[in-house]
Amino acid sequence: MPITAPQTAHRLNEWTANEIVAAIRAGKTTCEAVARACLDRIAERETVVQAWQYLDPDKVIAQARALDRSGRKDPLIGVPFGVKDIINTCDMPTEYGTPIYRGHRPASDAACVALTRKAGGVLMGKTVTTEFANVTPGKTRNPLDPTRTPGGSSSGSGAAVADCMVPLAIGTQTTGSTTRPASFCGVFGYRPTWGDLRPTGVMEASGSLDTLGILARSIEDVALYRDVLLGVDPKPVADDLPAPRVGFCRTYFWDRLESATRERLEEAAQRLARAGATVEEVSLPDEFEELEAAHRWISGFEMARNLAWEIENRAELISEKLRNGRLKDGLACSYERYCEMRDFVARCRRQIAPLFERHDVLLAASAQGEAPVGWDPVPHPWVYMMWTALHVPSVTLPVFKGASGLPMGAQLIARWSNDRRLFAAARWIYSRLGDA
Amino acid sequence: MPITAPQTAHRLNEWTANEIVAAIRAGKTTCEAVARACLDRIAERETVVQAWQYLDPDKVIAQARALDRSGRKDPLIGVPFGVKDIINTCDMPTEYGTPIYRGHRPASDAACVALTRKAGGVLMGKTVTTEFANVTPGKTRNPLDPTRTPGGSSSGSGAAVADCMVPLAIGTQTTGSTTRPASFCGVFGYRPTWGDLRPTGVMEASGSLDTLGILARSIEDVALYRDVLLGVDPKPVADDLPAPRVGFCRTYFWDRLESATRERLEEAAQRLARAGATVEEVSLPDEFEELEAAHRWISGFEMARNLAWEIENRAELISEKLRNGRLKDGLACSYERYCEMRDFVARCRRQIAPLFERHDVLLAASAQGEAPVGWDPVPHPWVYMMWTALHVPSVTLPVFKGASGLPMGAQLIARWSNDRRLFAAARWIYSRLGDA
Repeated sequence: MPITAPQTAHRLNEWTANEIVAAIRAGKTTCEAVARACLDRIAERETVVQAWQYLDPDKVIAQARALDRSGRKDPLIGVPFGVKDIINTCDMPTEYGTPIYRGHRPASDAACVALTRKAGGVLMGKTVTTEFANVTPGKTRNPLDPTRTPGGSSSGSGAAVADCMVPLAIGTQTTGSTTRPASFCGVFGYRPTWGDLRPTGVMEASGSLDTLGILARSIEDVALYRDVLLGVDPKPVADDLPAPRVGFCRTYFWDRLESATRERLEEAAQRLARAGATVEEVSLPDEFEELEAAHRWISGFEMARNLAWEIENRAELISEKLRNGRLKDGLACSYERYCEMRDFVARCRRQIAPLFERHDVLLAASAQGEAPVGWDPVPHPWVYMMWTALHVPSVTLPVFKGASGLPMGAQLIARWSNDRRLFAAARWIYSRLGDA
Repeated sequence: MPITAPQTAHRLNEWTANEIVAAIRAGKTTCEAVARACLDRIAERETVVQAWQYLDPDKVIAQARALDRSGRKDPLIGVPFGVKDIINTCDMPTEYGTPIYRGHRPASDAACVALTRKAGGVLMGKTVTTEFANVTPGKTRNPLDPTRTPGGSSSGSGAAVADCMVPLAIGTQTTGSTTRPASFCGVFGYRPTWGDLRPTGVMEASGSLDTLGILARSIEDVALYRDVLLGVDPKPVADDLPAPRVGFCRTYFWDRLESATRERLEEAAQRLARAGATVEEVSLPDEFEELEAAHRWISGFEMARNLAWEIENRAELISEKLRNGRLKDGLACSYERYCEMRDFVARCRRQIAPLFERHDVLLAASAQGEAPVGWDPVPHPWVYMMWTALHVPSVTLPVFKGASGLPMGAQLIARWSNDRRLFAAARWIYSRLGDA
């Protein structure tokens, strides 16, 4: 069985989803060969990385063989994917990162899982999440330095993709839960326009902020997987657009970023300008600083209601950190304050739209800096709260290195519902910064 | 054990939630007595009405006794409630109106169920829904005339409250699934501001349109239950507001309404004006007519993705009506069209807001007319699509009778997030029209 990549000399587990699909369609490899390569990588590395909450190699091989027998040529044929363990699967446990749901078996797949399988994906297993996608860490370590956090809450999804255990993984984001692990682990992270991808079968943390997220190793893979999750026929990323108009956005928290982050972003802005992009500094309205507090109140208010059953019936199994964190905030928030914050955020969403008449994308930080040493999975939430509250789509590109040589991402943000344009700009920008 | 009502000579099962709570707090009745009265009513009537998908009297009595022993005085202490069977319960099956989920047992309660139990409610059982809260009817009949539909999709919730089997029931609404059964069965129906009440543990039909719904026999019960579901301390309905400013809204589909409906609405507008309300005719922008098509495309697009697992794995158990209806529409809808419709609806939502500077509420039809003979559970969706797409809160008041003497509701609509003001206006209006 031929296992040579069409374009690269990499091992099969290192291929992107697009490479895998092309090779399988051309008869140059098989779903089983790809799955075995990924399983081998996991066997080699899982004791260090610990990305997986549930993994059953027999189930993986059985899926891959069935696909090989079927002769299907679907858009993700034979692509192994990981699923954050707050997302339901009908044939694997779903534990939401909490002992409350140990061994829980949902009756059906979440819509996003069903759509991926429909497209020919091979469900590799469930990736580690923090407790209820909130602050209490799971077991996963940063594959680039196991003394550091991979970032959360989509910790296992970020680490598994970065470590070439799978080419694609689904995460979610309520604050920075996809952007952060993408930045800390050095992969592409996509936070879609809020409302685009159906969350059926995904635990709701805070519905007015939650989205799915995609972790991948190329922007083309992000775009392909998004189309699959939208339930539409995939279209390639546009490559005929003019050089993008980039708004360089230091944000109100510029001084709180690590100096290396600030330097890399400034260098990147200069390089893009030299490469032909229009780059202008952009200031957001002063009041956007208050989106941080608004995000905190809104997400707390909603999460404290969403977990009503668990709080009433299994309080002793909820971590103290969560109880004294977002749940406490949420129970302290009056409905009047919640409404006030919601109105404020809606106003900000309208205010940011005109900015995108001058700029295809904004360029901003995707993390304070490199992944910190230790296990805090969700450091520096203020980097994410504003963008997430604004409901705009975002892609994190793995283009920087920090002082310790660890990855840091550049975050690109686009107008609401302009995700395709975001991908086209991201492709252009990555090709200019990606060898940094 | 005393079972006389404090304010009325009605049987216990006919009491409102507020009456039950007052009596239990005052030691004038018990949770068990109320539960037994409701169970007796069900035993007497269920063969005709068929409101219940699941009912286990022993479970009901056990809950009521435990509450009596606890001495709790919570806001819904001892109030029996029904739950539409697309809403998860940890101790009763949840079947979503489809054989696909026959006997399905979720691991936990939906947030709305947990919040109701936390407030002292007694979960009576699961009420009948149409298939996936869509077009294919369940077994329920209209309690006022069993040859007619109770309306759907919250068929069992509407019928059970109307027939005094429970004082409160939870429904949902994606098109008219709470408003319609409220109108057809002659009870109060409340469709909250979109986004207010958490849908965790509730089947998503079309997330950008779905809300919970409340069926009740008084506006005070609606308001009390809403506060419980919001997770806030209940406040009484304001009764010190001036006479409301009413916008009489014939809507673009006025000519499609039954003549009796048009007459009752016109009479009501005149009566309210005579009673001291400011009543003005209100015209909506012409393009609002297109919200009907927008609702159809959006809900179809989303539902066809939400049911991806069922479509891929259990297609033979999905009714032909659903497959050839909303799912077919949804699969025929391109993402570009979906986005166009979503943008249009967002624009209409902004356009309707200024109207509420002149009007506290709009008065409009809640159904084409009386419940039709036969089993179509969701006739005349065009009555509901516009209002539901606009995300505004609505209350249906059981104040009219049609040509056959069957109930018809008056629908009141308020500004987004002005639900309390809606209740206050509804109370004023109901007290002037309720004896019609």
